[in-house]
Amino acid sequence: MIIDKINIAEKLSLITDHWNPRIAGELNGQYIKLVKFKGEFVWHKHDNEDEMFLVIAGSFTMELRDKSISLNPGDYIIIPRGVEHKPVANEEAHVLLFEPATTLNTGNVENELTKHTLDII
Amino acid sequence: MIIDKINIAEKLSLITDHWNPRIAGELNGQYIKLVKFKGEFVWHKHDNEDEMFLVIAGSFTMELRDKSISLNPGDYIIIPRGVEHKPVANEEAHVLLFEPATTLNTGNVENELTKHTLDII
Repeated sequence: MIIDKINIAEKLSLITDHWNPRIAGELNGQYIKLVKFKGEFVWHKHDNEDEMFLVIAGSFTMELRDKSISLNPGDYIIIPRGVEHKPVANEEAHVLLFEPATTLNTGNVENELTKHTLDII
Repeated sequence: MIIDKINIAEKLSLITDHWNPRIAGELNGQYIKLVKFKGEFVWHKHDNEDEMFLVIAGSFTMELRDKSISLNPGDYIIIPRGVEHKPVANEEAHVLLFEPATTLNTGNVENELTKHTLDII
């Protein structure tokens, strides 16, 4: 087991696609994931997992059924289990996710955006 | 339950002391904590909790028994359970922690730095 620091921007520079989270750390059964958003994701929810989104660069809007929340660098939001949400990024946004290792990116929905296995970065 | 974004710098601006983590979010039994480091903490370990430290501003050194790791903004480090560590900040550092709700700041050590209850910020 090697303990070392990880630089977020350095890891993000290795990602060239969108909506494809990479695993960048694990602790207590939770993953740190890094992902680039661009465009519109899909409405979905996670029945058993709360999810945190922290903006590293760029900005995106978290659509909820009753409101929209714009997030900029240094902002984070926690989406509790069961709550439908849809991230939308007009420009590319770089995002750090904290969530249980079991979390599927599209939650209760399965479509072409679904990623069943994630690479480690 | 109100879902809203949190700005890290805004929350940190409310903290004026050192080594006193505040709770700034909860998900999946884990807390997001915000804390300001300055000076030398105490050697300790957590027997049952892995801990993540993400630098928001400033820098600090994570001392391990076999090496020292300097962390700057955008760097994070995961300290696995059982591993002795001691953060040292020559200048003030602003840090986001991600760890189980049960984690005691000084782990297996109890001294004047120990915080048994944390405020929510």
